[in-house]
Amino acid sequence: MQLLKDRIRAEGKVMPGGILNVGSFLNQQTDIGLYNEIGKEFARRFSGVRVTRILTIEASGIGVACVTAQYFNNAPVVFARKFRAKNIDENLYSTEVTSYTHGVDYTITVPRPYLLRGDSVLLIDDFLANGCALDGLVMITEQAGAVVAGAGVVIEKGFQSGGKRLREKNIRLESLAIIDKMSVEDGISFR
Amino acid sequence: MQLLKDRIRAEGKVMPGGILNVGSFLNQQTDIGLYNEIGKEFARRFSGVRVTRILTIEASGIGVACVTAQYFNNAPVVFARKFRAKNIDENLYSTEVTSYTHGVDYTITVPRPYLLRGDSVLLIDDFLANGCALDGLVMITEQAGAVVAGAGVVIEKGFQSGGKRLREKNIRLESLAIIDKMSVEDGISFR
Repeated sequence: MQLLKDRIRAEGKVMPGGILNVGSFLNQQTDIGLYNEIGKEFARRFSGVRVTRILTIEASGIGVACVTAQYFNNAPVVFARKFRAKNIDENLYSTEVTSYTHGVDYTITVPRPYLLRGDSVLLIDDFLANGCALDGLVMITEQAGAVVAGAGVVIEKGFQSGGKRLREKNIRLESLAIIDKMSVEDGISFR
Repeated sequence: MQLLKDRIRAEGKVMPGGILNVGSFLNQQTDIGLYNEIGKEFARRFSGVRVTRILTIEASGIGVACVTAQYFNNAPVVFARKFRAKNIDENLYSTEVTSYTHGVDYTITVPRPYLLRGDSVLLIDDFLANGCALDGLVMITEQAGAVVAGAGVVIEKGFQSGGKRLREKNIRLESLAIIDKMSVEDGISFR
């Protein structure tokens, strides 16, 4: 998606430790016009695919999932929580995940009533790196007896293992920008 | 907002400890059609008010803020983080907040480049109870030398002190549903 790649080149900041900061337009600060273009592009790529629900993970996946849902007939958006909150029913799907960004393990949970047997679930997230968050969403979808319709990712770090592993599982993965190399010195190379 | 109140009556679950679970349509699972109606209603209520940026807090404020922004000329949405993450610059506004829901204190942060002197900031959140999250967003807006254009809240718990305190500060607060009383036995009474 050229519009996105141009924006990453213009505003993305490569930081030490394999971190790409695109907070100025993609997550902590959000360009809503760009989010709408991203939503349309996911709809184009998943055209003809049955989607009854969109599943993402807090926090930065939520905005792009909600705007994207508008292009999937307002499919309900469900987000997995990273911690069990006191105002959520005890009746949860859950699995363990390791965060590359934060270097910690956590449990992700989804209340059972929000994912149903027979659902066809589109997974949406802003980033795919080592893929543990998406692996967790796949596991939760399977726990629910639902099927993964596909996974839509805004930025894939192609030099990490997540994308390869998801594709080997025969999950239809659509990444709108795939970064093959990046470094503080040499900048960003897209696939 | 009648559509919202009807939905709260139909699906909201009053739980012990003053908790209202509306996760089936308002936050952890999101009805995107309803979010759009909420966005339109905020735009109607804040019609004529200058809004250059929308500020919310992770996680459940993000979706409603992003959809609402579409009705404010795609104003950029910024969300405050509750923990400092390793991929964020050190250059942060920050303040301390106590969460009623989770019973803990935490620091909320916004990178300085995402809130500017001269910004006119609309605060958006899904819930207003004791108001500590919104107080924190007000403080961060003031740290930036920006002004609070108003605060838009989907559900206000009118029996807690947050709404009263914000109105006393002369912040224009628009709550789409205000609950005056609720209990497991007697259900929900709206103002």
